[in-house]
Amino acid sequence: MRVAELSTATGVSVPTIKYYLREGLLPQGELTSPNQARYGEDHVRRLRLIRALLDVGGMTIAQLREVIELIETPGQDVNDMLGATQRAITPVPEQEADAESIAAVEALIERRGWATGDRQPSRDALAGVLTRLNQLGFGWFSEVLDSYADAAEMVAKVDLDLTARQRDPDSMVELAVVGTLLGDVMMAALRRMAHESQSSQRFTATP
Amino acid sequence: MRVAELSTATGVSVPTIKYYLREGLLPQGELTSPNQARYGEDHVRRLRLIRALLDVGGMTIAQLREVIELIETPGQDVNDMLGATQRAITPVPEQEADAESIAAVEALIERRGWATGDRQPSRDALAGVLTRLNQLGFGWFSEVLDSYADAAEMVAKVDLDLTARQRDPDSMVELAVVGTLLGDVMMAALRRMAHESQSSQRFTATP
Repeated sequence: MRVAELSTATGVSVPTIKYYLREGLLPQGELTSPNQARYGEDHVRRLRLIRALLDVGGMTIAQLREVIELIETPGQDVNDMLGATQRAITPVPEQEADAESIAAVEALIERRGWATGDRQPSRDALAGVLTRLNQLGFGWFSEVLDSYADAAEMVAKVDLDLTARQRDPDSMVELAVVGTLLGDVMMAALRRMAHESQSSQRFTATP
Repeated sequence: MRVAELSTATGVSVPTIKYYLREGLLPQGELTSPNQARYGEDHVRRLRLIRALLDVGGMTIAQLREVIELIETPGQDVNDMLGATQRAITPVPEQEADAESIAAVEALIERRGWATGDRQPSRDALAGVLTRLNQLGFGWFSEVLDSYADAAEMVAKVDLDLTARQRDPDSMVELAVVGTLLGDVMMAALRRMAHESQSSQRFTATP
């Protein structure tokens, strides 16, 4: 298809498509004449990915470029690609963590046998939450940490099963962004619905 | 203790304490002379609750008043109290839900046997996420809905066990706010750590 048709198929404007081409985020089309190129399904998929990374993932163009370079590396390591994606969509936590909370996170990782690198921002996020709980006098809340970790492992297994079923790196990364971020919202909503249901069973006064 | 000591014990300034007294959010102390009152542990606990509702829960004073009125209702229904708390800390979802997604949420509730009322904003939040997934071409992602719901039920059970152990309504409501909101952050961090661990097991190229 020509660039105008690619625009219609994806809802991305022609000037924006040309910008992505210049920036190397979208591969060049196949030249059919000095001034015309033909685009295919790969381009449609890549534009979908770019929109998901920007709109859902809130990535900057620089972060997007880093992820796309990993996707395009010949024989790319899928784990590296997913790790870079996760770091790009995970904000650095605001809350400074205290030593006790950092140690509690290390102990959890050890206990669960989780393979997790030093660059994982969620370790800091978790230590930050534990610190905040301590400050609020809710240090004892961390006794639920392993129950939450059990639930997180269940969900992560399902998420990674879906990732393994994707046929190409673009789709894997798109799923990692959309599934991680919208999955958080889904989980939070389901948790509140389950709270309500259990509260009504346990705490409703019998008439 | 006197008002100055209450201020020292809680870190809340005397003018702010007087404002809460005038607004009826904090019960009056026991008068020891026409110009002096004595405050006790109930006041310390209530001030902690007010700070958690404002700082962690992001409640408005009007929402806070509604929750505190329910706490102070003689023979209050704990389920009503927790329900009002949850509604006050759950924002109305931005995303308009389509009919298909609303039906999917209704079917989920039916399937799980969840007791959930019409005023539950998380139903709309969930339908909004499903709609957004459809728009992004990820409608198939909803096949994980029941696995996520299993995990949410597990976590909610642990949360409500903790709630049932609280000795007074102030502490129950404080836990509902802190545990629900910081619990979301905890869950999101643990899910990403579990993602990373499973990704490295499944997708790392063997050297």
